Amino acid sequence: MNALQNIRVVLVRPIYGGNAGSVCRAMMNMGLSDLAIAAPRDDFNEYDAGKWAYSARSIWENRREFPGLKEAVADCRLVVGTSVREGLYRAHAKTPREWAPLLLNTAGEGRVAIVFGPEDNGLGNDDLAYCTGLIRIPSTDAYPSLNISHAVMVCAYELYMASGTVTERGEDSPEASSEIRERMFALWREALLKIDFMEDQKADHMMLGLRRILSRGKLTEIDVRIMMGIARQTLWLAERARGDEKET
Amino acid sequence: MNALQNIRVVLVRPIYGGNAGSVCRAMMNMGLSDLAIAAPRDDFNEYDAGKWAYSARSIWENRREFPGLKEAVADCRLVVGTSVREGLYRAHAKTPREWAPLLLNTAGEGRVAIVFGPEDNGLGNDDLAYCTGLIRIPSTDAYPSLNISHAVMVCAYELYMASGTVTERGEDSPEASSEIRERMFALWREALLKIDFMEDQKADHMMLGLRRILSRGKLTEIDVRIMMGIARQTLWLAERARGDEKET
Repeated sequence: MNALQNIRVVLVRPIYGGNAGSVCRAMMNMGLSDLAIAAPRDDFNEYDAGKWAYSARSIWENRREFPGLKEAVADCRLVVGTSVREGLYRAHAKTPREWAPLLLNTAGEGRVAIVFGPEDNGLGNDDLAYCTGLIRIPSTDAYPSLNISHAVMVCAYELYMASGTVTERGEDSPEASSEIRERMFALWREALLKIDFMEDQKADHMMLGLRRILSRGKLTEIDVRIMMGIARQTLWLAERARGDEKET
Repeated sequence: MNALQNIRVVLVRPIYGGNAGSVCRAMMNMGLSDLAIAAPRDDFNEYDAGKWAYSARSIWENRREFPGLKEAVADCRLVVGTSVREGLYRAHAKTPREWAPLLLNTAGEGRVAIVFGPEDNGLGNDDLAYCTGLIRIPSTDAYPSLNISHAVMVCAYELYMASGTVTERGEDSPEASSEIRERMFALWREALLKIDFMEDQKADHMMLGLRRILSRGKLTEIDVRIMMGIARQTLWLAERARGDEKET
Protein backbone atom coordinates (compact mmCIF):
# COMPACT_ATOMS: atom_id res chain seq x y z
CA MET A 1 0.00 0.00 0.00
CA ASN A 2 2.97 2.23 0.64
CA ALA A 3 3.87 2.49 -3.04
CA LEU A 4 0.40 3.85 -3.89
CA GLN A 5 0.87 6.59 -1.30
CA ASN A 6 4.00 7.72 -3.15
CA ILE A 7 2.13 8.26 -6.41
CA ARG A 8 1.07 11.86 -7.03
CA VAL A 9 -1.68 12.88 -9.40
CA VAL A 10 -0.89 16.26 -10.96
CA LEU A 11 -3.60 18.26 -12.70
CA VAL A 12 -2.18 21.02 -14.90
CA ARG A 13 -4.43 24.11 -15.24
CA PRO A 14 -7.67 22.17 -14.66
CA ILE A 15 -10.79 23.98 -15.92
CA TYR A 16 -13.84 22.39 -14.23
CA GLY A 17 -14.23 22.02 -10.48
CA GLY A 18 -16.59 19.07 -10.89
CA ASN A 19 -13.95 17.15 -12.81
CA ALA A 20 -11.31 17.79 -10.15
CA GLY A 21 -13.74 16.53 -7.51
CA SER A 22 -14.44 13.39 -9.55
CA VAL A 23 -10.68 12.91 -9.84
CA CYS A 24 -10.44 12.89 -6.02
CA ARG A 25 -13.16 10.26 -5.81
CA ALA A 26 -11.44 8.02 -8.38
CA MET A 27 -8.14 8.42 -6.48
CA MET A 28 -9.64 7.40 -3.15
CA ASN A 29 -11.50 4.45 -4.75
CA MET A 30 -8.12 3.17 -5.91
CA GLY A 31 -5.91 3.96 -2.93
CA LEU A 32 -4.23 7.17 -4.12
CA SER A 33 -4.20 10.32 -1.99
CA ASP A 34 -1.52 12.79 -3.15
CA LEU A 35 -3.10 15.47 -5.39
CA ALA A 36 -1.25 18.47 -6.80
CA ILE A 37 -2.64 21.32 -8.88
CA ALA A 38 -0.12 22.99 -11.18
CA ALA A 39 -0.79 26.56 -12.32
CA PRO A 40 -4.33 26.83 -10.89
CA ARG A 41 -6.73 29.16 -12.73
CA ASP A 42 -8.25 32.18 -11.00
CA ASP A 43 -11.80 31.28 -12.03
CA PHE A 44 -11.62 27.64 -10.87
CA ASN A 45 -14.81 26.57 -9.07
CA GLU A 46 -13.56 25.15 -5.76
CA TYR A 47 -17.08 24.65 -4.45
CA ASP A 48 -17.85 22.23 -7.30
CA ALA A 49 -14.60 20.38 -6.65
CA GLY A 50 -15.45 19.74 -3.01
CA LYS A 51 -19.02 18.80 -3.90
CA TRP A 52 -18.16 16.24 -6.59
CA ALA A 53 -15.43 14.66 -4.50
CA TYR A 54 -18.20 13.28 -2.24
CA SER A 55 -16.55 11.12 0.41
CA ALA A 56 -13.10 11.89 -1.04
CA ARG A 57 -13.34 15.55 -0.03
CA SER A 58 -10.30 15.10 2.24
CA ILE A 59 -8.13 14.52 -0.84
CA TRP A 60 -9.37 17.78 -2.34
CA GLU A 61 -8.83 19.67 0.92
CA ASN A 62 -5.30 18.27 1.32
CA ARG A 63 -4.24 19.08 -2.25
CA ARG A 64 -1.20 21.23 -2.81
CA GLU A 65 -0.98 24.00 -5.38
CA PHE A 66 2.16 24.92 -7.32
CA PRO A 67 2.92 27.81 -9.69
CA GLY A 68 3.75 25.36 -12.48
CA LEU A 69 4.34 21.74 -13.42
CA LYS A 70 8.08 22.12 -12.85
CA GLU A 71 7.50 22.90 -9.16
CA ALA A 72 4.76 20.28 -8.77
CA VAL A 73 7.08 17.44 -9.79
CA ALA A 74 10.38 18.76 -8.42
CA ASP A 75 10.70 15.94 -5.86
CA CYS A 76 9.61 13.14 -8.23
CA ARG A 77 11.87 10.42 -9.59
CA LEU A 78 9.60 9.50 -12.43
CA VAL A 79 7.15 11.87 -14.15
CA VAL A 80 4.76 10.43 -16.71
CA GLY A 81 2.40 12.55 -18.76
CA THR A 82 -0.90 11.43 -20.25
CA SER A 83 -1.69 12.19 -23.85
CA VAL A 84 -4.08 11.11 -26.57
CA ARG A 85 -2.54 13.19 -29.31
CA GLU A 86 0.06 11.88 -31.71
CA GLY A 87 3.32 13.62 -32.36
CA LEU A 88 7.08 13.56 -32.12
CA TYR A 89 7.24 13.20 -28.36
CA ARG A 90 4.19 10.99 -28.16
CA ALA A 91 5.06 8.13 -30.50
CA HIS A 92 6.49 5.95 -27.75
CA ALA A 93 3.78 6.30 -25.17
CA LYS A 94 2.97 3.09 -23.30
CA THR A 95 -0.40 1.97 -21.94
CA PRO A 96 -1.31 2.31 -18.23
CA ARG A 97 -1.02 -1.48 -17.94
CA GLU A 98 2.50 -1.41 -19.34
CA TRP A 99 3.48 1.48 -17.05
CA ALA A 100 1.97 0.17 -13.80
CA PRO A 101 4.79 -2.20 -12.65
CA LEU A 102 7.55 0.36 -13.29
CA LEU A 103 5.60 3.16 -11.60
CA LEU A 104 4.93 0.99 -8.54
CA ASN A 105 8.53 -0.20 -8.36
CA THR A 106 9.84 3.34 -8.47
CA ALA A 107 7.17 4.51 -6.03
CA GLY A 108 8.49 1.92 -3.59
CA GLU A 109 11.65 4.01 -3.32
CA GLY A 110 10.47 7.57 -3.90
CA ARG A 111 7.90 9.95 -5.26
CA VAL A 112 6.34 9.39 -8.70
CA ALA A 113 3.96 11.69 -10.62
CA ILE A 114 1.26 11.09 -13.22
CA VAL A 115 0.39 14.31 -15.04
CA PHE A 116 -2.96 15.20 -16.63
CA GLY A 117 -3.45 18.26 -18.82
CA PRO A 118 -6.35 20.73 -19.00
CA GLU A 119 -9.70 19.42 -20.28
CA ASP A 120 -9.67 21.38 -23.53
CA ASN A 121 -6.25 20.71 -25.02
CA GLY A 122 -4.37 18.29 -22.80
CA LEU A 123 -0.68 18.67 -22.04
CA GLY A 124 1.31 20.93 -24.31
CA ASN A 125 4.87 20.35 -25.46
CA ASP A 126 6.14 22.74 -22.77
CA ASP A 127 4.50 20.51 -20.13
CA LEU A 128 5.70 17.29 -21.76
CA ALA A 129 9.29 18.52 -21.53
CA TYR A 130 9.10 17.85 -17.77
CA CYS A 131 7.85 14.31 -18.31
CA THR A 132 10.27 11.39 -18.40
CA GLY A 133 7.66 9.12 -19.94
CA LEU A 134 4.27 9.10 -21.60
CA ILE A 135 1.03 7.25 -20.96
CA ARG A 136 -1.46 6.76 -23.76
CA ILE A 137 -4.80 5.32 -22.64
CA PRO A 138 -6.14 3.00 -25.35
CA SER A 139 -9.33 4.37 -26.90
CA THR A 140 -11.22 4.23 -30.18
CA ASP A 141 -10.37 6.41 -33.13
CA ALA A 142 -14.06 7.35 -33.18
CA TYR A 143 -13.68 9.16 -29.83
CA PRO A 144 -10.16 9.05 -28.41
CA SER A 145 -10.56 11.84 -25.83
CA LEU A 146 -11.44 10.69 -22.30
CA ASN A 147 -13.00 12.82 -19.60
CA ILE A 148 -10.14 13.75 -17.22
CA SER A 149 -11.62 11.90 -14.23
CA HIS A 150 -12.11 8.82 -16.44
CA ALA A 151 -8.46 9.06 -17.49
CA VAL A 152 -7.37 9.28 -13.85
CA MET A 153 -9.65 6.34 -13.01
CA VAL A 154 -8.12 4.10 -15.68
CA CYS A 155 -4.55 4.91 -14.57
CA ALA A 156 -5.38 4.60 -10.85
CA TYR A 157 -7.28 1.35 -11.46
CA GLU A 158 -4.30 -0.20 -13.28
CA LEU A 159 -1.98 0.86 -10.45
CA TYR A 160 -4.36 -0.55 -7.84
CA MET A 161 -4.72 -3.81 -9.76
CA ALA A 162 -0.93 -4.12 -10.02
CA SER A 163 -0.28 -3.12 -6.41
CA GLY A 164 -1.04 -6.54 -5.02
CA THR A 165 -3.57 -5.09 -2.58
CA VAL A 166 -6.56 -6.44 -4.49
CA THR A 167 -7.98 -9.22 -2.39
CA GLU A 168 -10.29 -11.88 -3.72
CA ARG A 169 -13.38 -11.79 -1.56
CA GLY A 170 -14.81 -14.98 -2.99
CA GLU A 171 -13.45 -16.77 0.05
CA ASP A 172 -16.02 -15.22 2.38
CA SER A 173 -17.85 -18.48 1.99
CA PRO A 174 -15.36 -21.29 1.44
CA GLU A 175 -15.93 -24.01 -1.14
CA ALA A 176 -17.89 -26.84 0.37
CA SER A 177 -15.97 -29.94 1.43
CA SER A 178 -16.59 -33.28 -0.21
CA GLU A 179 -18.15 -34.60 3.00
CA ILE A 180 -20.86 -31.93 3.15
CA ARG A 181 -21.47 -32.23 -0.61
CA GLU A 182 -22.06 -35.93 -0.23
CA ARG A 183 -24.52 -35.32 2.60
CA MET A 184 -26.31 -32.90 0.29
CA PHE A 185 -26.50 -35.43 -2.55
CA ALA A 186 -27.73 -38.15 -0.15
CA LEU A 187 -30.50 -35.83 1.05
CA TRP A 188 -31.49 -34.99 -2.52
CA ARG A 189 -31.52 -38.64 -3.47
CA GLU A 190 -33.84 -39.34 -0.59
CA ALA A 191 -36.07 -36.41 -1.47
CA LEU A 192 -36.27 -37.20 -5.19
CA LEU A 193 -37.20 -40.78 -4.39
CA LYS A 194 -39.81 -39.69 -1.88
CA ILE A 195 -41.54 -37.39 -4.35
CA ASP A 196 -41.45 -40.16 -6.97
CA PHE A 197 -39.31 -38.07 -9.28
CA MET A 198 -37.30 -41.21 -10.04
CA GLU A 199 -37.52 -44.92 -9.50
CA ASP A 200 -35.05 -46.70 -7.25
CA GLN A 201 -33.23 -48.52 -10.06
CA LYS A 202 -32.73 -45.28 -12.02
CA ALA A 203 -31.66 -43.23 -9.02
CA ASP A 204 -27.90 -43.62 -9.51
CA HIS A 205 -28.12 -42.49 -13.10
CA MET A 206 -30.31 -39.51 -12.25
CA MET A 207 -28.02 -38.51 -9.38
CA LEU A 208 -25.07 -38.43 -11.77
CA GLY A 209 -27.00 -35.84 -13.76
CA LEU A 210 -27.64 -33.76 -10.64
CA ARG A 211 -23.98 -34.02 -9.65
CA ARG A 212 -22.96 -32.78 -13.06
CA ILE A 213 -25.31 -29.77 -12.85
CA LEU A 214 -24.11 -28.82 -9.36
CA SER A 215 -20.43 -29.27 -10.21
CA ARG A 216 -20.23 -26.85 -13.15
CA GLY A 217 -19.04 -24.04 -10.91
CA LYS A 218 -17.76 -23.46 -7.45
CA LEU A 219 -20.16 -24.70 -4.76
CA THR A 220 -19.79 -22.99 -1.40
CA GLU A 221 -20.98 -24.00 2.03
CA ILE A 222 -23.77 -21.44 1.75
CA ASP A 223 -24.84 -22.92 -1.60
CA VAL A 224 -24.84 -26.40 -0.12
CA ARG A 225 -26.84 -25.26 2.89
CA ILE A 226 -29.46 -23.75 0.57
CA MET A 227 -29.66 -26.93 -1.51
CA MET A 228 -29.95 -29.07 1.61
CA GLY A 229 -32.67 -26.80 2.90
CA ILE A 230 -34.66 -27.30 -0.29
CA ALA A 231 -34.23 -31.08 -0.08
CA ARG A 232 -35.25 -31.18 3.58
CA GLN A 233 -38.30 -29.07 2.95
CA THR A 234 -39.24 -31.30 0.01
CA LEU A 235 -38.84 -34.38 2.18
CA TRP A 236 -40.99 -32.87 4.93
CA LEU A 237 -43.72 -31.98 2.43
CA ALA A 238 -43.56 -35.39 0.75
CA GLU A 239 -43.90 -37.12 4.11
CA ARG A 240 -46.80 -34.88 5.09
CA ALA A 241 -48.48 -35.57 1.73
CA ARG A 242 -48.11 -39.31 2.25
CA GLY A 243 -49.54 -38.93 5.72
CA ASP A 244 -52.53 -37.06 4.27
CA GLU A 245 -52.97 -39.81 1.70
CA LYS A 246 -53.13 -42.39 4.46
CA GLU A 247 -55.65 -40.35 6.39
CA THR A 248 -57.99 -40.01 3.46
CA MET B 1 -14.95 -5.13 -33.09
CA ASN B 2 -18.17 -7.05 -33.65
CA ALA B 3 -18.17 -8.54 -30.16
CA LEU B 4 -18.05 -5.08 -28.56
CA GLN B 5 -21.13 -4.07 -30.56
CA ASN B 6 -23.03 -6.96 -28.99
CA ILE B 7 -22.39 -5.73 -25.46
CA ARG B 8 -25.24 -3.69 -23.96
CA VAL B 9 -24.82 -1.31 -21.05
CA VAL B 10 -28.01 -1.25 -18.96
CA LEU B 11 -28.61 1.55 -16.46
CA VAL B 12 -31.34 0.70 -13.97
CA ARG B 13 -33.33 3.70 -12.67
CA PRO B 14 -30.44 6.18 -13.16
CA ILE B 15 -30.80 9.39 -11.13
CA TYR B 16 -28.47 12.01 -12.65
CA GLY B 17 -28.53 13.03 -16.30
CA GLY B 18 -24.90 14.14 -16.18
CA ASN B 19 -23.80 10.68 -15.09
CA ALA B 20 -25.76 9.01 -17.92
CA GLY B 21 -24.08 11.39 -20.38
CA SER B 22 -20.64 10.57 -18.96
CA VAL B 23 -21.52 6.88 -19.32
CA CYS B 24 -22.14 7.46 -23.06
CA ARG B 25 -18.76 9.14 -23.41
CA ALA B 26 -16.94 6.27 -21.65
CA MET B 27 -18.78 3.77 -23.87
CA MET B 28 -17.78 5.50 -27.10
CA ASN B 29 -14.18 5.91 -25.89
CA MET B 30 -14.04 2.14 -25.53
CA GLY B 31 -16.01 0.99 -28.57
CA LEU B 32 -19.40 0.24 -26.98
CA SER B 33 -22.62 1.71 -28.40
CA ASP B 34 -25.69 -0.19 -27.13
CA LEU B 35 -27.27 1.69 -24.20
CA ALA B 36 -30.50 0.69 -22.46
CA ILE B 37 -32.32 2.47 -19.66
CA ALA B 38 -34.45 0.22 -17.45
CA ALA B 39 -37.33 1.79 -15.50
CA PRO B 40 -36.49 5.43 -16.32
CA ARG B 41 -37.52 8.03 -13.73
CA ASP B 42 -39.99 10.78 -14.56
CA ASP B 43 -37.73 13.53 -13.23
CA PHE B 44 -34.60 12.41 -15.12
CA ASN B 45 -32.70 15.36 -16.64
CA GLU B 46 -32.34 14.44 -20.31
CA TYR B 47 -30.78 17.79 -21.17
CA ASP B 48 -27.87 17.10 -18.81
CA ALA B 49 -27.44 13.63 -20.29
CA GLY B 50 -27.06 14.96 -23.82
CA LYS B 51 -24.76 17.75 -22.65
CA TRP B 52 -22.34 15.56 -20.71
CA ALA B 53 -22.19 12.95 -23.45
CA TYR B 54 -20.25 15.53 -25.51
CA SER B 55 -19.23 13.84 -28.78
CA ALA B 56 -20.97 10.62 -27.71
CA ARG B 57 -24.40 12.26 -27.88
CA SER B 58 -25.42 9.78 -30.60
CA ILE B 59 -25.23 6.96 -28.05
CA TRP B 60 -27.56 8.86 -25.76
CA GLU B 61 -29.96 9.67 -28.59
CA ASN B 62 -30.02 6.04 -29.78
CA ARG B 63 -30.64 4.59 -26.31
CA ARG B 64 -33.65 2.38 -25.76
CA GLU B 65 -35.90 2.56 -22.72
CA PHE B 66 -37.61 -0.43 -21.10
CA PRO B 67 -40.20 -0.67 -18.32
CA GLY B 68 -37.85 -2.83 -16.25
CA LEU B 69 -34.59 -4.76 -16.17
CA LYS B 70 -36.38 -7.95 -17.20
CA GLU B 71 -37.42 -6.41 -20.52
CA ALA B 72 -34.05 -4.65 -21.04
CA VAL B 73 -32.14 -7.95 -20.98
CA ALA B 74 -34.76 -10.26 -22.51
CA ASP B 75 -32.65 -10.95 -25.62
CA CYS B 76 -29.33 -11.37 -23.77
CA ARG B 77 -27.45 -14.65 -23.33
CA LEU B 78 -25.38 -13.44 -20.44
CA VAL B 79 -26.42 -10.76 -17.93
CA VAL B 80 -23.85 -9.56 -15.42
CA GLY B 81 -24.65 -7.13 -12.64
CA THR B 82 -22.20 -4.77 -10.98
CA SER B 83 -22.09 -4.53 -7.23
CA VAL B 84 -19.83 -3.27 -4.47
CA ARG B 85 -21.91 -4.57 -1.60
CA GLU B 86 -21.32 -7.89 0.06
CA GLY B 87 -24.01 -10.44 0.58
CA LEU B 88 -25.34 -13.87 -0.22
CA TYR B 89 -25.59 -13.39 -3.95
CA ARG B 90 -22.50 -11.22 -4.17
CA ALA B 91 -19.84 -13.42 -2.60
CA HIS B 92 -18.74 -14.93 -5.91
CA ALA B 93 -18.47 -11.80 -7.96
CA LYS B 94 -15.48 -11.71 -10.31
CA THR B 95 -13.44 -8.70 -11.38
CA PRO B 96 -13.96 -6.98 -14.77
CA ARG B 97 -10.61 -8.43 -15.88
CA GLU B 98 -11.76 -11.94 -15.01
CA TRP B 99 -15.09 -11.42 -16.79
CA ALA B 100 -13.81 -9.78 -19.98
CA PRO B 101 -12.80 -12.91 -21.97
CA LEU B 102 -16.06 -14.76 -21.23
CA LEU B 103 -18.18 -11.68 -22.00
CA LEU B 104 -16.38 -11.14 -25.31
CA ASN B 105 -16.63 -14.81 -26.26
CA THR B 106 -20.34 -14.88 -25.60
CA ALA B 107 -20.82 -11.52 -27.33
CA GLY B 108 -19.25 -13.07 -30.42
CA GLU B 109 -22.36 -15.23 -30.70
CA GLY B 110 -25.15 -13.13 -29.23
CA ARG B 111 -26.19 -10.23 -27.06
CA VAL B 112 -24.63 -9.69 -23.62
CA ALA B 113 -25.59 -7.15 -20.93
CA ILE B 114 -23.70 -5.40 -18.15
CA VAL B 115 -26.07 -3.91 -15.61
CA PHE B 116 -25.46 -0.88 -13.39
CA GLY B 117 -27.78 0.14 -10.56
CA PRO B 118 -28.96 3.58 -9.46
CA GLU B 119 -26.36 5.97 -8.02
CA ASP B 120 -27.70 5.89 -4.47
CA ASN B 121 -28.12 2.22 -3.66
CA GLY B 122 -26.90 0.16 -6.58
CA LEU B 123 -28.69 -2.96 -7.76
CA GLY B 124 -31.19 -4.52 -5.37
CA ASN B 125 -31.77 -8.23 -4.91
CA ASP B 126 -34.81 -8.04 -7.20
CA ASP B 127 -32.55 -6.73 -9.98
CA LEU B 128 -29.78 -9.23 -9.25
CA ALA B 129 -32.24 -12.08 -9.73
CA TYR B 130 -32.10 -11.34 -13.49
CA CYS B 131 -28.30 -11.47 -13.52
CA THR B 132 -26.48 -14.68 -14.38
CA GLY B 133 -23.22 -13.35 -12.99
CA LEU B 134 -21.74 -10.57 -10.88
CA ILE B 135 -18.94 -8.08 -11.42
CA ARG B 136 -17.18 -6.53 -8.47
CA ILE B 137 -14.82 -3.70 -9.38
CA PRO B 138 -11.82 -3.79 -7.05
CA SER B 139 -11.69 -0.73 -4.80
CA THR B 140 -10.40 0.27 -1.39
CA ASP B 141 -12.30 -0.40 1.80
CA ALA B 142 -11.82 3.29 2.58
CA TYR B 143 -14.10 4.24 -0.34
CA PRO B 144 -15.49 1.27 -2.24
CA SER B 145 -18.28 3.10 -4.10
CA LEU B 146 -17.41 4.26 -7.62
CA ASN B 147 -19.19 6.96 -9.58
CA ILE B 148 -21.43 5.13 -12.08
CA SER B 149 -19.62 6.50 -15.15
CA HIS B 150 -16.29 5.47 -13.58
CA ALA B 151 -17.68 1.98 -13.04
CA VAL B 152 -18.81 1.81 -16.68
CA MET B 153 -15.40 3.11 -17.78
CA VAL B 154 -13.49 0.40 -15.88
CA CYS B 155 -15.70 -2.37 -17.30
CA ALA B 156 -15.65 -0.95 -20.85
CA TYR B 157 -11.89 -0.40 -20.65
CA GLU B 158 -11.27 -4.02 -19.66
CA LEU B 159 -13.49 -5.22 -22.50
CA TYR B 160 -11.72 -2.95 -24.98
CA MET B 161 -8.29 -4.09 -23.75
CA ALA B 162 -9.34 -7.74 -24.11
CA SER B 163 -11.03 -7.25 -27.48
CA GLY B 164 -7.79 -7.38 -29.43
CA THR B 165 -8.57 -4.08 -31.13
CA VAL B 166 -5.98 -2.17 -29.13
CA THR B 167 -3.19 -1.34 -31.52
CA GLU B 168 0.27 -0.42 -30.43
CA ARG B 169 1.04 2.89 -32.07
CA GLY B 170 4.69 2.86 -31.13
CA GLU B 171 5.37 1.53 -34.58
CA ASP B 172 4.53 4.83 -36.26
CA SER B 173 8.28 5.38 -36.26
CA PRO B 174 10.06 2.03 -36.54
CA GLU B 175 13.13 1.22 -34.50
CA ALA B 176 16.24 2.37 -36.31
CA SER B 177 18.24 -0.26 -38.15
CA SER B 178 21.78 -1.08 -37.14
CA GLU B 179 23.07 0.47 -40.35
CA ILE B 180 21.55 3.90 -39.68
CA ARG B 181 22.58 3.72 -36.01
CA GLU B 182 26.19 3.12 -37.06
CA ARG B 183 26.08 6.07 -39.45
CA MET B 184 24.82 8.15 -36.53
CA PHE B 185 27.65 7.02 -34.25
CA ALA B 186 30.22 7.65 -37.01
CA LEU B 187 28.90 11.18 -37.43
CA TRP B 188 29.01 11.79 -33.68
CA ARG B 189 32.54 10.46 -33.47
CA GLU B 190 33.58 12.87 -36.19
CA ALA B 191 31.80 15.77 -34.51
CA LEU B 192 33.15 15.07 -31.01
CA LEU B 193 36.65 14.89 -32.41
CA LYS B 194 36.22 18.09 -34.39
CA ILE B 195 35.07 20.06 -31.35
CA ASP B 196 37.97 18.63 -29.34
CA PHE B 197 35.64 16.94 -26.88
CA MET B 198 37.91 13.90 -26.99
CA GLU B 199 41.34 12.96 -28.25
CA ASP B 200 41.78 10.45 -31.04
CA GLN B 201 43.22 7.69 -28.83
CA LYS B 202 40.35 7.99 -26.33
CA ALA B 203 37.63 8.18 -28.97
CA ASP B 204 36.73 4.47 -28.95
CA HIS B 205 36.31 4.45 -25.19
CA MET B 206 34.20 7.61 -25.22
CA MET B 207 32.05 6.30 -28.04
CA LEU B 208 31.27 3.19 -26.00
CA GLY B 209 29.86 5.50 -23.34
CA LEU B 210 27.71 7.29 -25.91
CA ARG B 211 26.51 3.96 -27.31
CA ARG B 212 25.51 2.84 -23.84
CA ILE B 213 23.51 6.04 -23.21
CA LEU B 214 21.71 5.81 -26.55
CA SER B 215 20.94 2.11 -26.21
CA ARG B 216 19.06 2.21 -22.91
CA GLY B 217 15.71 2.37 -24.66
CA LYS B 218 14.23 1.99 -28.07
CA LEU B 219 15.83 4.30 -30.65
CA THR B 220 13.60 5.10 -33.59
CA GLU B 221 14.46 6.45 -37.01
CA ILE B 222 13.14 9.85 -35.93
CA ASP B 223 15.38 9.77 -32.85
CA VAL B 224 18.38 8.87 -35.00
CA ARG B 225 17.60 11.61 -37.48
CA ILE B 226 17.47 14.14 -34.64
CA MET B 227 20.79 12.92 -33.24
CA MET B 228 22.40 13.00 -36.69
CA GLY B 229 21.08 16.53 -37.21
CA ILE B 230 22.74 17.67 -33.99
CA ALA B 231 26.03 16.04 -34.99
CA ARG B 232 25.93 17.58 -38.49
CA GLN B 233 25.16 21.02 -37.13
CA THR B 234 27.98 20.66 -34.61
CA LEU B 235 30.37 19.60 -37.38
CA TRP B 236 29.32 22.55 -39.53
CA LEU B 237 29.84 24.97 -36.67
CA ALA B 238 33.18 23.44 -35.74
CA GLU B 239 34.40 23.73 -39.31
CA ARG B 240 33.23 27.32 -39.55
CA ALA B 241 34.96 28.12 -36.25
CA ARG B 242 38.20 26.59 -37.51
CA GLY B 243 37.82 28.59 -40.69
CA ASP B 244 37.39 31.73 -38.62
CA GLU B 245 40.48 30.82 -36.63
CA LYS B 246 42.49 30.52 -39.82
CA GLU B 247 41.24 33.87 -41.08
CA THR B 248 42.28 35.72 -37.96
